[in-house]
Amino acid sequence: MKIGVAKERRPHEARVAVSPDTVKKYVGLGASVAIETGAGAGANIPDEVFKAAGAEIAPDEAAALKDADLVLKVQRPLTAAEGGPDELTLLKPGAVLVGILSPHGAKDQVQQYAAKGVTAFAMELMPRITRAQVMDVLSSQSNLAGYKAVIDAAAEFGRAFPMMMTAAGTIAPARVLVMGAGVAGLQAIATARRLGAIVSATDVRPAAKEQVESLGATFVAVMDEEFKQAETAGGYAKEMSDAYKAKQAALTAETIKKQDVVITTALIPGRKAPVLVSEEMVKTMKPGSVIVDLAVEQGGNCPLAEPGKVVVKHGVKIVGHLNLPSRLAADATSLYARNLLAFVSLMIDKETKGLKIDWEDEIMKGTGLTRDGKVVHPALVG
Amino acid sequence: MKIGVAKERRPHEARVAVSPDTVKKYVGLGASVAIETGAGAGANIPDEVFKAAGAEIAPDEAAALKDADLVLKVQRPLTAAEGGPDELTLLKPGAVLVGILSPHGAKDQVQQYAAKGVTAFAMELMPRITRAQVMDVLSSQSNLAGYKAVIDAAAEFGRAFPMMMTAAGTIAPARVLVMGAGVAGLQAIATARRLGAIVSATDVRPAAKEQVESLGATFVAVMDEEFKQAETAGGYAKEMSDAYKAKQAALTAETIKKQDVVITTALIPGRKAPVLVSEEMVKTMKPGSVIVDLAVEQGGNCPLAEPGKVVVKHGVKIVGHLNLPSRLAADATSLYARNLLAFVSLMIDKETKGLKIDWEDEIMKGTGLTRDGKVVHPALVG
Repeated sequence: MKIGVAKERRPHEARVAVSPDTVKKYVGLGASVAIETGAGAGANIPDEVFKAAGAEIAPDEAAALKDADLVLKVQRPLTAAEGGPDELTLLKPGAVLVGILSPHGAKDQVQQYAAKGVTAFAMELMPRITRAQVMDVLSSQSNLAGYKAVIDAAAEFGRAFPMMMTAAGTIAPARVLVMGAGVAGLQAIATARRLGAIVSATDVRPAAKEQVESLGATFVAVMDEEFKQAETAGGYAKEMSDAYKAKQAALTAETIKKQDVVITTALIPGRKAPVLVSEEMVKTMKPGSVIVDLAVEQGGNCPLAEPGKVVVKHGVKIVGHLNLPSRLAADATSLYARNLLAFVSLMIDKETKGLKIDWEDEIMKGTGLTRDGKVVHPALVG
Repeated sequence: MKIGVAKERRPHEARVAVSPDTVKKYVGLGASVAIETGAGAGANIPDEVFKAAGAEIAPDEAAALKDADLVLKVQRPLTAAEGGPDELTLLKPGAVLVGILSPHGAKDQVQQYAAKGVTAFAMELMPRITRAQVMDVLSSQSNLAGYKAVIDAAAEFGRAFPMMMTAAGTIAPARVLVMGAGVAGLQAIATARRLGAIVSATDVRPAAKEQVESLGATFVAVMDEEFKQAETAGGYAKEMSDAYKAKQAALTAETIKKQDVVITTALIPGRKAPVLVSEEMVKTMKPGSVIVDLAVEQGGNCPLAEPGKVVVKHGVKIVGHLNLPSRLAADATSLYARNLLAFVSLMIDKETKGLKIDWEDEIMKGTGLTRDGKVVHPALVG
């Protein structure tokens, strides 16, 4: 069985779908691995290191993917319409394609996978079950994004994060608010705390309070009876009353005024990101404050954020870097590659060393987009 | 008495010589303070804030400095030869000038101060005595530079600093070596430790071992008898034997190979910086490693560093940002302004509210460059 890996060609993408570690494992499972020359450059993995791990270095993308039974990608293949080489034409009919395929944003392309007879799996649709945690690319990449958001904030901020006591007097610590306490938000809280900031956080889930506090941050919420009931109900977001939401919004606005740094992390899969920091709120912030908007690719949690740019609006720096995990490409590649390995291992038959997909497995059902020339994923069918 | 403050016009300089706090204090001491419009922009201090603190906002530099008895600067005045407006022409004869005046690198200009009858004080020549610690601009600014060096390294590094334990496996912490354990080096050690890196450090002074270890880092040194004797001798650098230096160099070279990040901070006042990381050593580092050279303005501790640039050589990113304190302009201004206030307070006569310089004070003698039309500093005279 041949595994093909190409250099990722989308803008702002420095990751690659395999690491030297996972190449070794694939070879150990009986596969051959062909990697396009330079594919690891963005993640600081030279061709020789891949070669030493057992990969064959292909001179170009076509050679890497030619006759590959399994093609591993980070992002979905480029299309001719996007100005790239049409990468899908390089896959053989019947190939299996695995990556972060953004099926909701690229429905036409999913049809093309089917038409071409490619069996495609979207890693970001991984079911949230214990057995699949090791394959959870959203978690592994969000974790790094949360760290990087704080590093980006510290890099743009004109002051230091920690309190500093000097002979000339004391510098106050920075105040950091993290909005959204998911995987990225929790790592942002932990990183800002490490750097010595005074950290607070918000989340629509009252149950997030305990996690936020366990990291040494303050949970910003109107702690009324309704909140307490919702908190003990636990788990995922429960819709709060309009009266509660209004009180919470007022508290949030008051809190934002006092911050030096606001990091927003609220994403809703497949939908536009919610607005958390309005232009009015930005106007209340101190000159030189920094906002890092991790949702900028989905429309932004702050409407003033601009994708791929650092802009100054009303004296506040608003950071809209794209693809934060790729900005930590070496670690992001290492974890993503391990996520893929865990997933792919499920479909490699130990005896024949070939591919054998168990379509009864909920992991395959949850991530599979196309099969036997048809679109099969329930979220994409009728 | 009028104090004049202009916008700093040198490249890469965002600081300003006063803060709202110190303006208030100067006004309280009976002075009037004129600040050029926009002078605080780089440090996120709007004109209105200076005005609210009691300053008068001048429409241009000439108006800010016109008839000023005391001119406060960060860096030395621009000269016509440097392509700027000749700032010295804006000072009245007899004015007192205080700033980081780089007298050793600008001897001609010191002559001009004298010729013009300006009494100039160079803050970086502050004597290292207890009473002057609060005026020590080298310490206050180096402290911030050490912090910023680590933030810059983290921003350029393609991996995270802390160990991260994820469902997909563990990411190892970054290994950071800090070369030179002065004020900047110690803050760099502390910051890298905060971020979760494994930190080690070197210094030519064996006595630095204790400070390095107190911050949780490993001191890299050949711990032989000669070292132990030098260590207990304490204090400033003692010249070690050639045999010791050779052993230490071999150990350093071995250590550098294993690092992800190297931060160099070795400066010798008024002289070219020593080479600590040779091109040969850079070649031994892993692809994607990062070197931050804080001495790049003085020729660099790494000969491959380029002033004002981030370059990749032999697969290693070498960061040569200029004027690191200015990259944290808000805090750097705050501390620098307090250093100046403490110094200037010594020369304001409580009764007349005018300037009265006590030339018997060792602080004045140590920093004074010119007086009564003559160059008077011992290091600059004959």
